[in-house]
Amino acid sequence: MQTFPLTFYTNPESRGCIVRRMLEELAVPYETVALDYAGQMKTAEYLAINPLGKVPAITHGKLVVTETAAICAYLADAFIDKRLAPALSSAQRGIYYRWLFFAAGPLEMVTTAKACGWNLNENPQMVGSGSYEDTVDALEQALADGPYICGEQFTAADVYVGSHVSWGIQFKTLPERSIFKDYADRLAKRPAFQRADQLDAELKAKMAAK
Amino acid sequence: MQTFPLTFYTNPESRGCIVRRMLEELAVPYETVALDYAGQMKTAEYLAINPLGKVPAITHGKLVVTETAAICAYLADAFIDKRLAPALSSAQRGIYYRWLFFAAGPLEMVTTAKACGWNLNENPQMVGSGSYEDTVDALEQALADGPYICGEQFTAADVYVGSHVSWGIQFKTLPERSIFKDYADRLAKRPAFQRADQLDAELKAKMAAK
Repeated sequence: MQTFPLTFYTNPESRGCIVRRMLEELAVPYETVALDYAGQMKTAEYLAINPLGKVPAITHGKLVVTETAAICAYLADAFIDKRLAPALSSAQRGIYYRWLFFAAGPLEMVTTAKACGWNLNENPQMVGSGSYEDTVDALEQALADGPYICGEQFTAADVYVGSHVSWGIQFKTLPERSIFKDYADRLAKRPAFQRADQLDAELKAKMAAK
Repeated sequence: MQTFPLTFYTNPESRGCIVRRMLEELAVPYETVALDYAGQMKTAEYLAINPLGKVPAITHGKLVVTETAAICAYLADAFIDKRLAPALSSAQRGIYYRWLFFAAGPLEMVTTAKACGWNLNENPQMVGSGSYEDTVDALEQALADGPYICGEQFTAADVYVGSHVSWGIQFKTLPERSIFKDYADRLAKRPAFQRADQLDAELKAKMAAK
């Protein structure tokens, strides 16, 4: 168990909400630093943490981790006793990485392309993702057995993939298929998710009142 | 140490070359199955392994792993004694995930967008990657200390990020900065990389002769 101080840099209207869910699932102490899009993400102090000037990021002692999926994977390993990652030398670990990287790469690519009106098919060898339809179908197939992406064990991959699925339905970048809806609903019922979303709703209200 | 049979599905003109480098770094026995783009990736037999009909993929016993970065991360953990991943509860593990997911997500996104002429800036809240310039600068900064992305230890993240860097220079989706070139050159000198690229060159010639 790590005992370094854990600091969470976020904005309640960012992918930081995914990291918040992960932190609440872990139920470890952390300090939240809220940054607005107007300028606080671009201060020299924050750019020293994330040169991309984006949230989320975490610091854990002197370590800095950015990229939402990387933060989830790191925290799951750092607090391995919390059982949010499969064991290191298990086959489940392969399934876990498969869908974490699938969501961070191809799924992010095809849903962004859909939202922005980019044509994925004009240069198929450059575009690593494959088509929108194939990517969405692969995700549906991965969730068909359930209840979680690695089967019976809820993991950090569900925190990450599940957030993609529920936002995808909400922003209409994913179709409203019953497997997607059921999975999102199952995750939304988790006490840690509800606590996380409540904390972010409160933070949003607090930032808006300033 | 896992003793299940390891099978590698690839095409020598695909991201499979990255997995080949990883397998040669591990120096474990594996069987190669070469698939052409003309139809072999779309057979029912292969679609049962990867419903996206893409290479690379591996099977390890009954386990299937797809997504290049996921395969690298899985193999590093499955053969943890080979020291191609930082220890589970080390800070290096956070750095390792940070740059693996950075390359699989934002870096893949901005270089693909550049190659395809997509405008990343028209919808900044939907596009998670940030701008091309910021992403490339962040990568340069990550490699500035070196010699490897996690510092002194060469890891699977170098296999993956390094392949992005060398291809980025080659296909002109990354600028030819000296830090990028030096890093790519350092990796290209590794015996495992040279062995992997030689095996893929031979496979390419064999497939062309058919």
